[in-house]
Amino acid sequence: MKALYFNGNNLEYIENYQKPTVFTGHSLIRVLMSAICNTDREIIKGYRPNFRGVLGHEFVGIVEQSDDEKLIGKRVVGELNEGCGNCIYCKTNREKHCQNRKVIGFEGLDGTFAEYLVLANHLIHEVPNSLPTEKAIYTEPLAAALEIPSQVHISPETNVAVIGDGRLSFMIAQVIALTGADVTIIGRHQEKLETFKSFAKINHKDGDTYEIVIDATGSPSGIETAKNIVRKGGKVVLKSTYSGTANVDLSYFVVNEISIIGSRCGPFEPALKLLDRQLIKLPEIELWSLKDYNKAFESKAFKVGFKF
Amino acid sequence: MKALYFNGNNLEYIENYQKPTVFTGHSLIRVLMSAICNTDREIIKGYRPNFRGVLGHEFVGIVEQSDDEKLIGKRVVGELNEGCGNCIYCKTNREKHCQNRKVIGFEGLDGTFAEYLVLANHLIHEVPNSLPTEKAIYTEPLAAALEIPSQVHISPETNVAVIGDGRLSFMIAQVIALTGADVTIIGRHQEKLETFKSFAKINHKDGDTYEIVIDATGSPSGIETAKNIVRKGGKVVLKSTYSGTANVDLSYFVVNEISIIGSRCGPFEPALKLLDRQLIKLPEIELWSLKDYNKAFESKAFKVGFKF
Repeated sequence: MKALYFNGNNLEYIENYQKPTVFTGHSLIRVLMSAICNTDREIIKGYRPNFRGVLGHEFVGIVEQSDDEKLIGKRVVGELNEGCGNCIYCKTNREKHCQNRKVIGFEGLDGTFAEYLVLANHLIHEVPNSLPTEKAIYTEPLAAALEIPSQVHISPETNVAVIGDGRLSFMIAQVIALTGADVTIIGRHQEKLETFKSFAKINHKDGDTYEIVIDATGSPSGIETAKNIVRKGGKVVLKSTYSGTANVDLSYFVVNEISIIGSRCGPFEPALKLLDRQLIKLPEIELWSLKDYNKAFESKAFKVGFKF
Repeated sequence: MKALYFNGNNLEYIENYQKPTVFTGHSLIRVLMSAICNTDREIIKGYRPNFRGVLGHEFVGIVEQSDDEKLIGKRVVGELNEGCGNCIYCKTNREKHCQNRKVIGFEGLDGTFAEYLVLANHLIHEVPNSLPTEKAIYTEPLAAALEIPSQVHISPETNVAVIGDGRLSFMIAQVIALTGADVTIIGRHQEKLETFKSFAKINHKDGDTYEIVIDATGSPSGIETAKNIVRKGGKVVLKSTYSGTANVDLSYFVVNEISIIGSRCGPFEPALKLLDRQLIKLPEIELWSLKDYNKAFESKAFKVGFKF
């Protein structure tokens, strides 16, 4: 099958990559569409130095083989993290934190930039018939945004700031705005900020403060900006991962009783529901064939992916 | 009146310090007992470089004059932070975070190492008749411990570690243990650890992990220890303040969805209730007269204070 392989240094397009074989508790999925996530770019830059394999983790596909018969023939999306099933995390509903987990396109498992992948049955979610594939492809990033209200109570009477005007912020701001809360986007790109206008404010002024501040900048500077605008007694949600450490005045957070909440992958089912109800604005995904992967990775479009 | 004055460099015992005069919304309190807090030592070391005045903020006293008649003659304790009454924090039940607040013995107001102090009426709490003064003196530190369950849900089925075997940890561990949760104390002083044994575990082993970790070490190393023993998806409560910044691998907290919660002063009424019900073990306070302040500050006793 065709696949995009990461060899530790760069991507290789392989025409005859071995098609995976299905095994107990798992399904063989034919990929219809797969999207590039910023994490894929980070992996190419060295974020996962030990990973070798097919890249990619955002996909929509059709189940072709499975020992769970009701999955066969279904159009599906799938979660990334497959736990060991035995540790404290797997046993307490935190499979994504399993220390021995495998992650498609990340850690120990081939990913979704290929014609086929194999995924554990319990990680597979059926896509409603009414939800087109090019919308369903947003399930994983929308789930990551939904992880925030899953962790933190967002009162409709509160005010929230999102730092960063990128793809993830676009999802986060919409999820927060659905609660009725005031959302302000703080970013550096006027043309991107304009795209948030129908659901968020873009008029942050010096001195404005917020009960909840979400850092989706992807950079170590995010925590410092957040510290300057979060109210005392408020919360900072961190969505940014990067290599290296940040120098933080933790005493400020203690004295002012500010919480810092780390936030990562989120729940798929609520994401599918919101997408199916067309409650989330989604820019059109730009699609390429797998062999044009260089053009795809160079594209500046909001969302870029591969069609099979 | 007799008072212990901080002149910016060191303490001075002043025999004829001017007795404060009471004004609208405030009470004149005759101090019966006042205790030394670690923050007082920090102030002498330079933690509050702009403060000049009478030091001290933990006290029990008798209200002698007040425009709130029902306070007169009552034995009382009092909160530290007096807000402006007009800002977003004062208007949303967060007076202690008011940016223009005054704090007794800290910031703009004389403290409790004196025969008299003046305090805002709404910060004053009556001590139950059945609660002796030498127990009531623990109200403020116990309230600081109670701030943790006030901010974070402590399930009786969870396990909690407290890092640090000092005075604050002694209060914190007892408050947590009252929920029925497992509490493990991690400290360096075997003789201190022994004093926790009736309500906490002291047998932490390498590799043990906890859902909630409370740093009460007072040092920048606390967050690193906490990071190593907190479970993924868990919470770190920070009670430590110190000058300077800490170098923190924030991405670890994001990827593993760990929350960091800054925690400071807490609620007085629950503290008075727990003390009155004798639910908190309290080592006996060592008492000195004000003029022996040097001996008091040099003492290694668990709790040291002044009797008037």
